[in-house]
Formats: sequence, C-alpha cells, structure tokens
Amino acid sequence: MRRFPAPIHNLVAALSLLPGVGPKTALRYTYAILRFSKTDQEHLAKAILTLGETITVCGECRAYSQEARCEVCADERREKDLLCVVAESRDIATLEQSGTFRGRYFVLGGLLNPIEGITPDRLNVHVLLDRIKNDSEIKEVILAFNPNVHGEATTLYLAKLIKPFSKKISRLARGLPLGAEIEYADEVTLGEAVIGRRDV
Amino acid sequence: MRRFPAPIHNLVAALSLLPGVGPKTALRYTYAILRFSKTDQEHLAKAILTLGETITVCGECRAYSQEARCEVCADERREKDLLCVVAESRDIATLEQSGTFRGRYFVLGGLLNPIEGITPDRLNVHVLLDRIKNDSEIKEVILAFNPNVHGEATTLYLAKLIKPFSKKISRLARGLPLGAEIEYADEVTLGEAVIGRRDV
Repeated sequence: MRRFPAPIHNLVAALSLLPGVGPKTALRYTYAILRFSKTDQEHLAKAILTLGETITVCGECRAYSQEARCEVCADERREKDLLCVVAESRDIATLEQSGTFRGRYFVLGGLLNPIEGITPDRLNVHVLLDRIKNDSEIKEVILAFNPNVHGEATTLYLAKLIKPFSKKISRLARGLPLGAEIEYADEVTLGEAVIGRRDV
Repeated sequence: MRRFPAPIHNLVAALSLLPGVGPKTALRYTYAILRFSKTDQEHLAKAILTLGETITVCGECRAYSQEARCEVCADERREKDLLCVVAESRDIATLEQSGTFRGRYFVLGGLLNPIEGITPDRLNVHVLLDRIKNDSEIKEVILAFNPNVHGEATTLYLAKLIKPFSKKISRLARGLPLGAEIEYADEVTLGEAVIGRRDV
C-alpha cells in the first residue's frame, strides 16, 4: 500500500528541492498547503509560474530583474563613480535596505570555492573586468562579500585583477555588529574593530 | 524604488503563508526556485494545483484521500475490531511506517486547546461517537495523541464519552525512546517506563 496519495507524494518531492527542506518539512508544508484556501493555492502556483516567465537577468549588472536593464542600472540618479560587487542578487536588496549606498551594483554569481567546483570561469569575472575597463566613470570598486574564507579569497583574487585599471578598491568594514558584547566577540573581529576605530 | 521586482515580491508573500516560514526564508526559497529548471518550476506549480483539485477527505475516517473512501478504509484485510484515533491525517503515515497496526483509523482534526479556541465542536467528536456507536465490530479504541497536555486532555475527554459504549479504550505506551539515555530522561517518562516494564 502506498503511504500517501500520489498528489501529496508529488508535492513533497517537488518541495524537497528547496534549500534546507527535507522530507519532514516538505510534508509539513504540503499539509499546510492542503489547508490553504483555493485562492491561496492558486495564487502560490501562479506566483511560481510568473516568476519563471517574467524574471530575467539584467544585461548590465547581472541581477534578477523584470526588464533587460534593471531598475538600479536604469536609474540616472545613481552615482556613476561607485560600483559595488556582490556575490548574489539578493545581497543587493539587503544593501539597498541599509540606505547608505547610492552607486551601482554588479552580481558576481557566487564566491570562489574550488572544493565545490566554483572556479573563476563559473562566475561573471570577465564581464566584470570588461565593465570596469570600459566604464571610465567608475572611480571606486567596492568588493562586498561575506566575511568568510570564500569571501576573502574572492576579494584578494578580484583585487589583483582590478588593480591594473587603477581604480580605488575597497571592502566592507569589519567590526562589532550592533547589539554585540565585547566579552563574546572573537579576537579577529575585535582586532579589526580596534584597527578601524573611528573618532567620536 | 521597489526593493524587489514584483514577481519576486509576490512569491515571497505567498510562501510566507507556510508554517515557520518568515520573509528571510521565503526569499531564500524564491531565489532557489529562480534557479530551478523550467521543468521543475512547472512541476512544483502543477503539484500545488493538483493537490487542491484531487485531494478530498475520506467520508469514513476523515483522512486526506484521493477517493471518497481512503485506501485504508477500503482495504477489507484491515482488522475491523481496532480503531485508532489520531489528531491529524499525517499521523496515519507515521503509524503505518511503524508497521505494527493493522486496524483502521479515525482523524479527530486536532487536539483540544481551549486557549486557541479548539473546543470539542471544532473537532470530529460527534462523527467519531456515531461511528463507535453504530459499528459493532469495533472492540477497542486506541487514542494515539501526542504525549503533551493537549493530548492528555483530549484522551481523558474522549475516554469519558466513549465509556458508555463499553469498548476497550487504550492509549500509546510511555517509556524511553530508542537511543535515549536514562541519565537524561525526565522523571515522568522514567516513572512510566518503570510502571510499564516488560518481561524479557
């Protein structure tokens, strides 16, 4: 005897493709969707299809976008001398929320990770270098990657490649996050917070 | 400026209806779905629609089913003298996996929880009592609820209502789960394990 009716089994299998979702969580989601109203079920299915049909990649910055040129790249008021390189499209949303950056973005498509087979040719490295080379308005390139071993490696790798174009190269500041306690801070972070101290 | 293209925003909103899924997780799932192949996207959307269209509730045991009468209720080889009452449809799958129960099931639709407004009239209590009253083949009713305060309350409440029909009423055994350590067992569980000890 089958343990679940086929439609339940099929949705569990489809949901299990999501990151961090195993069979138990997929089953939990499936039962929740069963309890959704007809409208909510149709809305969810339609949102998935619309996403696949309407979202493309911006030709300029490689971020997910509805247009061939995304809203940020098309916005003439953005500062043209700052280019912020991020690993993933979603990092742009997080940086935009901080409200401190008014330049433009470029999505690398990931971080270098040779063990997982992510070598420079798998990322948008050449497109980035072409852009930096051809856009004389860019004065500074900010490498905004996660502060971990892969982010560090990618920063060093790109900095070396960008150097010949004589642009300023920077990275995000290290220090204590809001709400942290000095007692529990790791020594590297605390060291960087001391070196990067600011006048009050 | 909108932070996300509308199709991304819409899917994030739809996924946020799932249990335990906040905006961050919904965004993570959305970006994962963006990276799905066209086939996988369509498959997921179709699985959701098919679920809503084909899954109904078994008229006999109230479990989710593709037919008006579910596979277990329709199976003539199941023992007719045992009725196992569970809180949710998904508990049936878990019990079936254990392979120890060959009787039939009844889905109560939840556990008594007056604080959350789940009173007896919100559950399938009357349908259950009608079934026990009219099905003279049933000799024993197993109340298989979670071993917590709501499960306890529901067990005591139902036991009182079922008693007049002079059926045997039982509940699942308490004791140490496989892989547990006596050192870390709570005193109630350990006490029940001593009382319910078995010959070797």
